[in-house]
Amino acid sequence: MKKSSKPQIPRKTVYRLSTYLRCLAPLKDKNILTVSSDVLAKVAGVKPTQLRKDLAYFGTFGTRGLGYDVTELSRRISDELGTSSLQPVILVGLGNLGMALLSYRGFEKEGFEILAAFDAEPNRRRDKQIKQPLLGMEKLRDFVRTNVVKMAILAVPAEAAQEVANTLVRYGIVGILNFSPIVLHVPEEVMVNNVNLAIELENLSYFIQE
Amino acid sequence: MKKSSKPQIPRKTVYRLSTYLRCLAPLKDKNILTVSSDVLAKVAGVKPTQLRKDLAYFGTFGTRGLGYDVTELSRRISDELGTSSLQPVILVGLGNLGMALLSYRGFEKEGFEILAAFDAEPNRRRDKQIKQPLLGMEKLRDFVRTNVVKMAILAVPAEAAQEVANTLVRYGIVGILNFSPIVLHVPEEVMVNNVNLAIELENLSYFIQE
Repeated sequence: MKKSSKPQIPRKTVYRLSTYLRCLAPLKDKNILTVSSDVLAKVAGVKPTQLRKDLAYFGTFGTRGLGYDVTELSRRISDELGTSSLQPVILVGLGNLGMALLSYRGFEKEGFEILAAFDAEPNRRRDKQIKQPLLGMEKLRDFVRTNVVKMAILAVPAEAAQEVANTLVRYGIVGILNFSPIVLHVPEEVMVNNVNLAIELENLSYFIQE
Repeated sequence: MKKSSKPQIPRKTVYRLSTYLRCLAPLKDKNILTVSSDVLAKVAGVKPTQLRKDLAYFGTFGTRGLGYDVTELSRRISDELGTSSLQPVILVGLGNLGMALLSYRGFEKEGFEILAAFDAEPNRRRDKQIKQPLLGMEKLRDFVRTNVVKMAILAVPAEAAQEVANTLVRYGIVGILNFSPIVLHVPEEVMVNNVNLAIELENLSYFIQE
């Protein structure tokens, strides 16, 4: 479902909707027809009040005593998130992490297709067979425009990240999944989600110190 | 710096400390001696009031008008986060993503060493040379105990994740970086950080819908 105006659901709620969707899938597979908000909340690791508040964005449709219709709830969340159709993504940066992400099949399984990957040295020898085209940065502009790509995965080294991000934005990319370990500065209308694997480990290690 | 009691700094603050540390590194490299809270906040993408509040955990040591001593601030954050020594981690799950994470050199660069990787089928043919030992799950218990490992990266399929997490916890793992697309249920004293790459893309794509 495309929205005509800026979406109203807050970012954290959207993250939780994604989680609910993934918690509903195994219920569907087991032919479970309804689920109570208490049970779904428990599986999703949130408070029942939080779940009910989140689902209130869809209006009221749970039945008291019976709970939510599993199929219907999945469909509504999926429609809202726009996960019913494959979305095109490009990847920039063919170092170790970029190559790893390219060969990760989880994206496609969940509705995202990496159409092509870009690097300053696309022809450098790599030890892996990749099905997507590996292209030079000079091809970026035309590719993004021709294929109407709006999202990019950024996996370049820290020192190149801001400049590459500027280029992506200039060519029309409005969503960046940033794996580079720096804070990107982008125009307000561009959305950046950061994944920093080392910071995640650092955070864990802090809390498990004795 | 090991703490003798449960750490007092909230999780989100610890994430931001990790970010400040990474923003300070290039300043050190450029021999910049001091940085104002306004400038550091801007680079880190937070409000100056937020930065000052976060750094107040270290007591007062910024100099009004001069700002923070770059080297000193780096050292204090690094000591607090315990990033000065390599920390041992194991990885469980040698599918596509697990293999990708194993060959990602960013962990080591940032102070984490993946000592070994475990899988139900450690000897299945894989198209990549890996320097770490690939071991069967029956080796997990002894390995964790012998090497005093406290942290694990979990990259097994959704349907196996909870059971493997239970096993890890039973053998003494207290920090899990979870890449499996499910919500893990663990005892209170165990810390889980979740990285779900598909959910990150889904979240982005929601906000850039037109």
